[in-house]
Formats: sequence, C-alpha cells, structure tokens
Amino acid sequence: MQNDPIEHLISLLSRLPGLGRRSARRAVLKMLMDPADKMLPLADALRAAADSVRPCEVCGNLDAASPCHICDDPHRDRRLVCVVEGVADLWALERAHAHRGTYHVLGGLLSALGGTGPEDLSVTPLLRRIEANGIEEVILALPATVDGATTNHYLTDRLKPTGAAITRLAQGVPIGGALDVLDDGTLAAAFKARRAL
Amino acid sequence: MQNDPIEHLISLLSRLPGLGRRSARRAVLKMLMDPADKMLPLADALRAAADSVRPCEVCGNLDAASPCHICDDPHRDRRLVCVVEGVADLWALERAHAHRGTYHVLGGLLSALGGTGPEDLSVTPLLRRIEANGIEEVILALPATVDGATTNHYLTDRLKPTGAAITRLAQGVPIGGALDVLDDGTLAAAFKARRAL
Repeated sequence: MQNDPIEHLISLLSRLPGLGRRSARRAVLKMLMDPADKMLPLADALRAAADSVRPCEVCGNLDAASPCHICDDPHRDRRLVCVVEGVADLWALERAHAHRGTYHVLGGLLSALGGTGPEDLSVTPLLRRIEANGIEEVILALPATVDGATTNHYLTDRLKPTGAAITRLAQGVPIGGALDVLDDGTLAAAFKARRAL
Repeated sequence: MQNDPIEHLISLLSRLPGLGRRSARRAVLKMLMDPADKMLPLADALRAAADSVRPCEVCGNLDAASPCHICDDPHRDRRLVCVVEGVADLWALERAHAHRGTYHVLGGLLSALGGTGPEDLSVTPLLRRIEANGIEEVILALPATVDGATTNHYLTDRLKPTGAAITRLAQGVPIGGALDVLDDGTLAAAFKARRAL
C-alpha cells in the first residue's frame, strides 16, 4: 500500500541515516497524535531548508547565506584556514570551538579504490584563496585514515609553493580515553609524539 | 541561531523518538546533499499525512480514510473484535497477520498513578459496537503489565453482560526466547499454563 500516506511517510523517514523502519514507525505515530503541532512545522522546516540552504561560494560550508556566516564573520581570522573533508567535520570543529579562522571544504579525500582524484576535490579554489587572501597557515584537519594521509601528502606538495605554513591535527590518546581499549596505531603514535611536562 | 534554517530543522527532527541531536544532524546533512530529491518529498509526505490521516470513527485506528481500510474490508470477520491500548499495538498485530477480525483502540489503560479512569477510555463506544453488530468474541490484547491486568479485569466486568466471549492473549515463553534470560514472572506463568503435547 505505497499510496497510503502513512506507509509512504514511514518509508521516506526510514531512509534517513539513524532511523530504521521501526523507529520511523514510532516517530510517525507520535507525530500523528498531534499533526498540526508536530508534522506541519517539520514539513515547513524541510521546505525552508531545501529552498534556502546552499554551499558557500567561498568555503563550501552549507548555510542559508553565501558567503556563509563564518566567512562573513569579521571576527574570524582570515589568515588561518582549516581544510576539512566535508561539512560534518566543519560543524564538529565549530561545536568544539576549536578554530578561530575560516574553513575550506575539500569535498572528499583522494582514494585510489574509490576512484577519487585531485580533480574531484576543491584544491584549485583553495590555492586561489591562499594566494588572493595572504593566508599564513593552512591547518589540514583530515581524518587519520589511509586516504586522509594520502590527501595530506598531496596537499602538502601542492600548497608548499604558496609559502603558507602547513600544519595538521595532533594525533594521540583521546581525552578520557583508557589506554587498554585504544588501537595499537594510536598508542604507538601517541608514544612516539610524547611531550615533556 | 534559532532562526538558522539548518539549526531549526535539526532541533525539530531531534525531538522525534529514536533520533538524538547527533543523528538528526547526520540526517539533515545527508538530505542537504540532495534537497530536491530528499527534503521536498519528505516535506510533501508530512503535509499529505497531516492533512489526510485521522482516527477511524469506528475503531480509532489512524488512516487516510474513515472508516479505516480494516473496518471497511469486507473480508474481515466483524464478529471478532480485538481490543488494543493504542494504534501502535494495532499495527503490530496487523504486521504479524495475527487477527482476521476488526479492532477497537481503547486509547490508554486504567492507571491509578497516571490518573486515567474509565471515562478516559473508549469503553462506551466499544459496548455500543458489541451490541449493534452482534460481536461474538472480544479479544483483549492489552500489555501484560499491572495497568493492562487492571484494565482486563475492568473490561471483563463491563463486557460480561453483552454475552460476547471474552478472551485474552496467551502468556508464555516468546518464540526464540532462551529460558535463562526470561524474567521470573514470565517463566512461572509459562510453567503454570503448560500444555500437553
């Protein structure tokens, strides 16, 4: 009964990450208890977001404005740009209040297996930004994976001629992390990068 | 930034059962990758369901039609009515293809602590249905909790004068259930209700 509005809604909701069929059903039932207050505002919010949100023309962040509110913020230090794989990472760094500069969304990682080459990533726009805006430090905040490391190497080579300092995130023991459950690679990296107290 | 359409959408989504803030954020990011294909259909489906779905005037099921498609189905045995606490239970029994009759949604359970009395439940309409339609068996499919048992007792008293047979679901070991992880109450009930092979 695909033309049944309830079944149709459940099947659309259950395609979202984190929602299975079971929880989609529960969510729909809960919303149907109070459609005017629970469903219509959500429908409006979805439509408003779909209509207004687009990638920032400068950094690639998703926002209702372009340039986005970060690129547009006069208190941000434009000499520091933090390179991230995707918008999710940008949002995570913002939640952590980790960075006072601006961002650059790469749009992926180099991956031989995934067939992602340099031309699929936003590298040329990054080079152009660095040259046009006198960026002094490029912080590579890419994931600590094989593809992340490959992309770090590639970007370091490409960005070196600009003269900007190139840094990457520290690797080590996560805050609150117990040593005995950490993987060997992280433990070895943290040991090697130990610091004097 | 509550007037930010992305934050607004995340906060509405994260109020759904089963979705925390983290998964709501992931869901919104995924949808924003393809708004026309992922967000607008969901907005339309929410609006269509809110506009069309209402409680069935006969049984209380939620459906786009009233009487609902179950009450309206000529192949259903109208002499059997299954009483459930809420629509979620009705849907669960339908998925299990457990029942070939019709349903009656009670809308709750008697609860001294929760302050739910008989007048809050759909009991009078149930009595009227039994008398008007010559219902022969009323199956009480209420949860096996204290409130469920209280409601079972109350309904049995109220329905007895109608002359309809009153049954309730069997209690015992769930299919696939290991004995050693079952609670004592279920084990004792299953033991007491043992059947000859």
